[in-house]
Amino acid sequence: MYQLGIVRRNIPRADRAAVDRLAQFGSATVHEAMGRVGLMKPYLRPIYPGAHVAGTAVTVLLHPGDNWMMHVAAEQIQPGDVVVAACTADSDDGFFGDLLATSFRARGAKGLVIDGGVRDVKDLTEMDFPVFSRAISAKGTIKATLGSVNISVVCAGAVVNPGDVVIADADGVVVVPAARAQQTADAAAAREANETAKRARLAAGVLGLDMYDMRDTLAKAGLKYID
Amino acid sequence: MYQLGIVRRNIPRADRAAVDRLAQFGSATVHEAMGRVGLMKPYLRPIYPGAHVAGTAVTVLLHPGDNWMMHVAAEQIQPGDVVVAACTADSDDGFFGDLLATSFRARGAKGLVIDGGVRDVKDLTEMDFPVFSRAISAKGTIKATLGSVNISVVCAGAVVNPGDVVIADADGVVVVPAARAQQTADAAAAREANETAKRARLAAGVLGLDMYDMRDTLAKAGLKYID
Amino acid sequence: MYQLGIVRRNIPRADRAAVDRLAQFGSATVHEAMGRVGLMKPYLRPIYPGAHVAGTAVTVLLHPGDNWMMHVAAEQIQPGDVVVAACTADSDDGFFGDLLATSFRARGAKGLVIDGGVRDVKDLTEMDFPVFSRAISAKGTIKATLGSVNISVVCAGAVVNPGDVVIADADGVVVVPAARAQQTADAAAAREANETAKRARLAAGVLGLDMYDMRDTLAKAGLKYID
Amino acid sequence: MYQLGIVRRNIPRADRAAVDRLAQFGSATVHEAMGRVGLMKPYLRPIYPGAHVAGTAVTVLLHPGDNWMMHVAAEQIQPGDVVVAACTADSDDGFFGDLLATSFRARGAKGLVIDGGVRDVKDLTEMDFPVFSRAISAKGTIKATLGSVNISVVCAGAVVNPGDVVIADADGVVVVPAARAQQTADAAAAREANETAKRARLAAGVLGLDMYDMRDTLAKAGLKYID
Amino acid sequence: MYQLGIVRRNIPRADRAAVDRLAQFGSATVHEAMGRVGLMKPYLRPIYPGAHVAGTAVTVLLHPGDNWMMHVAAEQIQPGDVVVAACTADSDDGFFGDLLATSFRARGAKGLVIDGGVRDVKDLTEMDFPVFSRAISAKGTIKATLGSVNISVVCAGAVVNPGDVVIADADGVVVVPAARAQQTADAAAAREANETAKRARLAAGVLGLDMYDMRDTLAKAGLKYID
Amino acid sequence: MYQLGIVRRNIPRADRAAVDRLAQFGSATVHEAMGRVGLMKPYLRPIYPGAHVAGTAVTVLLHPGDNWMMHVAAEQIQPGDVVVAACTADSDDGFFGDLLATSFRARGAKGLVIDGGVRDVKDLTEMDFPVFSRAISAKGTIKATLGSVNISVVCAGAVVNPGDVVIADADGVVVVPAARAQQTADAAAAREANETAKRARLAAGVLGLDMYDMRDTLAKAGLKYID
Repeated sequence: MYQLGIVRRNIPRADRAAVDRLAQFGSATVHEAMGRVGLMKPYLRPIYPGAHVAGTAVTVLLHPGDNWMMHVAAEQIQPGDVVVAACTADSDDGFFGDLLATSFRARGAKGLVIDGGVRDVKDLTEMDFPVFSRAISAKGTIKATLGSVNISVVCAGAVVNPGDVVIADADGVVVVPAARAQQTADAAAAREANETAKRARLAAGVLGLDMYDMRDTLAKAGLKYID
Repeated sequence: MYQLGIVRRNIPRADRAAVDRLAQFGSATVHEAMGRVGLMKPYLRPIYPGAHVAGTAVTVLLHPGDNWMMHVAAEQIQPGDVVVAACTADSDDGFFGDLLATSFRARGAKGLVIDGGVRDVKDLTEMDFPVFSRAISAKGTIKATLGSVNISVVCAGAVVNPGDVVIADADGVVVVPAARAQQTADAAAAREANETAKRARLAAGVLGLDMYDMRDTLAKAGLKYID
Repeated sequence: MYQLGIVRRNIPRADRAAVDRLAQFGSATVHEAMGRVGLMKPYLRPIYPGAHVAGTAVTVLLHPGDNWMMHVAAEQIQPGDVVVAACTADSDDGFFGDLLATSFRARGAKGLVIDGGVRDVKDLTEMDFPVFSRAISAKGTIKATLGSVNISVVCAGAVVNPGDVVIADADGVVVVPAARAQQTADAAAAREANETAKRARLAAGVLGLDMYDMRDTLAKAGLKYID
Repeated sequence: MYQLGIVRRNIPRADRAAVDRLAQFGSATVHEAMGRVGLMKPYLRPIYPGAHVAGTAVTVLLHPGDNWMMHVAAEQIQPGDVVVAACTADSDDGFFGDLLATSFRARGAKGLVIDGGVRDVKDLTEMDFPVFSRAISAKGTIKATLGSVNISVVCAGAVVNPGDVVIADADGVVVVPAARAQQTADAAAAREANETAKRARLAAGVLGLDMYDMRDTLAKAGLKYID
Repeated sequence: MYQLGIVRRNIPRADRAAVDRLAQFGSATVHEAMGRVGLMKPYLRPIYPGAHVAGTAVTVLLHPGDNWMMHVAAEQIQPGDVVVAACTADSDDGFFGDLLATSFRARGAKGLVIDGGVRDVKDLTEMDFPVFSRAISAKGTIKATLGSVNISVVCAGAVVNPGDVVIADADGVVVVPAARAQQTADAAAAREANETAKRARLAAGVLGLDMYDMRDTLAKAGLKYID
Repeated sequence: MYQLGIVRRNIPRADRAAVDRLAQFGSATVHEAMGRVGLMKPYLRPIYPGAHVAGTAVTVLLHPGDNWMMHVAAEQIQPGDVVVAACTADSDDGFFGDLLATSFRARGAKGLVIDGGVRDVKDLTEMDFPVFSRAISAKGTIKATLGSVNISVVCAGAVVNPGDVVIADADGVVVVPAARAQQTADAAAAREANETAKRARLAAGVLGLDMYDMRDTLAKAGLKYID
């Protein structure tokens, strides 16, 4: 249950080195490395091709059509953070634009993940300020109601705690709990090493059926070949 | 982040007396009593008119098209529980039908809230087994992959911890953390008492503009009347 | 373009007798009688089976998640009115519930058409207060921003001017400009008379192909029968 | 690929006795009896509670906003048929109303499944003429473009051949190829017999975990119980 | 209410100089300059990155799946116009492609805003003919039913009168009534000047909290900081 | 009705020369050349700008969240094929990524059309491996349930038989039955030749009204010009 009207100032952040290691992997790899959990819903999309970001979460809870808390959040940003904004109800309004991006960047933010809309996407693209949003909309917002900053939020279906690692790219947005950053980076590295070898074999024409030894299992499941 | 393959057997449940008190209020009243938080997304709808339920949550994490964990959950149900089923990705398949409802009821379950589809709705209606779901679909599911039972889940956008109070009716589904059940019931009762008086005045023709003293604030905000 | 912060007090309403005549027809008949225009989008649905309403429009322009103007609108209601609420952006929040319904009814309102969400639907059903909405949601709203009352609005894709006739039933919501109420009622009556005769012939087994003389046109268009 | 401008007059229909047997089962049971295939997408919904129908398909291919072919289809209806209407593009317009229902019924039609919208739902409900549709809309349609009648169509994601059996109820719409009607009825009967026994055991408190012997498989898959 | 079968030939257009001034601003700025109204729904999207257009509206009312009126509209285009196409019901069909774009451009059109689908997007992109649409679809349309040209239409939720100014870019599509073009351009210029100064301060690390003097209001609203 | 657990090894493929000819045309042209049928729903979109593909279909039937059959399909690919993957229920999960693309390409596949989600889109873009999908999602899939390979499937609303020609580009995905490849290529060539002449006339300022002789028909339909 959300607590409203709260700003947590001192949050533990995931280990910087682990974040840097995780930043080398794509969201799909990290999602697999976590055991296929931690993914936000796929309706969150990058606002420009090639947008990608990795960092520690500063969380914001917004109300529909109200971006007041974004300004409160700005003050809590530290270099390397990614702002993660949730909303108490679905809203496609433009909660964020180039002025807030300028402010967030000045504070050291690396990007934004928002379960809402954004605007000024041409400017954001030129700034190369990566944003992952549910919508793009010129619709402005008001500043009337208290949400919270740095509480645990549900953003696009995933729980995000302040300080968690957020990895976002063209495939989606994945959240790694701060306490699991290191081991997830290890698992991702192992998975990627493994995939490199597999990729080479597949490129050489080896079939997944053989590489993964699937033929017997498929036959036992009853698969029939017809000529 | 979801832990997979876990069943928690002994969960603390919200105080029964507090649940019974909360059961007397509608979801809208309880949502307001919590300070307008705790609500699941409005795409969850009752499968028949008049369906309503209040109880303590037994949570289930499902995978799309796979209802294996529903059977695991059945064993963890105690009288007065409501099963709350989340899914790792959006799926409208029919995870639940009259056989599972029979089993759940035999264990004492009062209803189901599921971020997925259900089937056998004619039977469920005749049983008066209340279900709140995102879809109705005859599509069957498999039993192949481990989820979890009685972990913290995100269901239709709201965090549900095992043992939390769930109130569902025609207006939606609201979650009250177990630790706040008593005080939320108090706030709901106060709110409802307050509303009864207001309802009488409004029915007598008093305007909200006057009853809530809005005229000055509206004028200050710049509202203009034109004849 | 919407003017904000305006309440028009004296609006011309469609002729009562014409409204009463229109009230006898369904929305589909009236829509056809207008030449197949004037219909709101089909996502507006009645909140209970059998809900239907006809009356003159008092219009409201809301902002997402803010129902302040509903209270302002209440004062402008006269007996026989239907409140038509539009919103400056899509919002499923519960802008309206049983208290406002009590107030609206006390003022003489016959129902509500809202391009937004409503709550307390059990109470509204028991009151038999007809509402057509885009969603049902327990989510509460704030009172912070000025919209307008009795301006021309776009509700679910249709322009509604204050005083226009609104006809809503299970098939949808149709708007008849005040100045065309009488002639539309005439056209609807003519259409319905015509349909009664047709219905009898079709019930007797006459085919539409013959009753509407379609066979030649179909043949000319190239329709081929294959045995 | 659709052939346009074709009406097939003599179509083989599924065996009447088999259809009658299938009519006794729900769509979920029949879908399972077919091996979990043959289901239309769950966005098709009955237009009134309790609507259900079983019969042999007369198929229609419509164009968006054009119901001309519905009149052509009427002539091809034989007692016991269900009209299945597909559309070349998504359209929520009201292709069907009480006049066509009167005509269809006069020809012996038992109901309609349409991947489009319908209107006059109050009348259709009073007639108890079962319709399963993607939308309800008062929007009228034109008669301008040739589609086809009794060709193979894709309706809500499922292939329907003329003469196939269509079973529709609150859980959805399932299609049984004419040639498999008898064996599917057998499988459905077997399944239902089996479920009756299971239901009794579950009602008596036996767990699915035990009844289906799942405990070992779950343990092997790695399920952990925590106290 | 739409009048069908009408083409208005001589429409007053917004002042060219004012249009040229407005063309320098983005849709978000213009929307704010109008007091946060006049915006079309955000489901309208540019068909290629970088598409943007500003001009005076020639309006078209289409029927679903029918683009006949687009040809009628072509004749009414004058240099500097933007065609704005509405539809009497939602339709994703491809109403517009490279041939119509060639014709529109030959007449002086600067672009198209359509509450429907378009096709030939590769050609349109190569032509750099900006289009904002609700969908992309290869589906062809017919020419069978009269709509209108240069009547007042509702396009993606916004009223557009012929001759109004339309500003469309990556953030959305905004409509400025012809009579307000000049003053909106003034307001937009003032806003943009103001934003430049703000941007510099924010880039220098000043917080919005301080620049907008929000701290007191937030504290009064009850915001609590926790260490 | 889908047959599950079947792999057809020897499928007749459309004539290579006809496929090569069809590959020169866009999907909109081919769709028109077929008489405006054969199109998949427009929710299938290319995963990167400029993606386009033409080839012969190897079909796959998947279950939601399960990509096992993709590996079975790989073995059936021959140079020039396009894999067309359908699913028994809507699922946005990432069924396909760079490893499968590497394998498919090694077998000679030219691309993928999938009524589901894909991932690794950055890699797929760099590989220039064209994919048309309903979603992009990092969500991984399991390998648990048998579907089929090279059966007739319904993909995004269109029937695809193994060996059919699939043409996909920015406008959509169209399916040409193998037996009609040659005549469709002829019709497409005729259409395109015809369009070149039209394009030149339209570019020179000739109106479609005149070029298509529409003025009389419009007048007869009742179109009125108002000055």
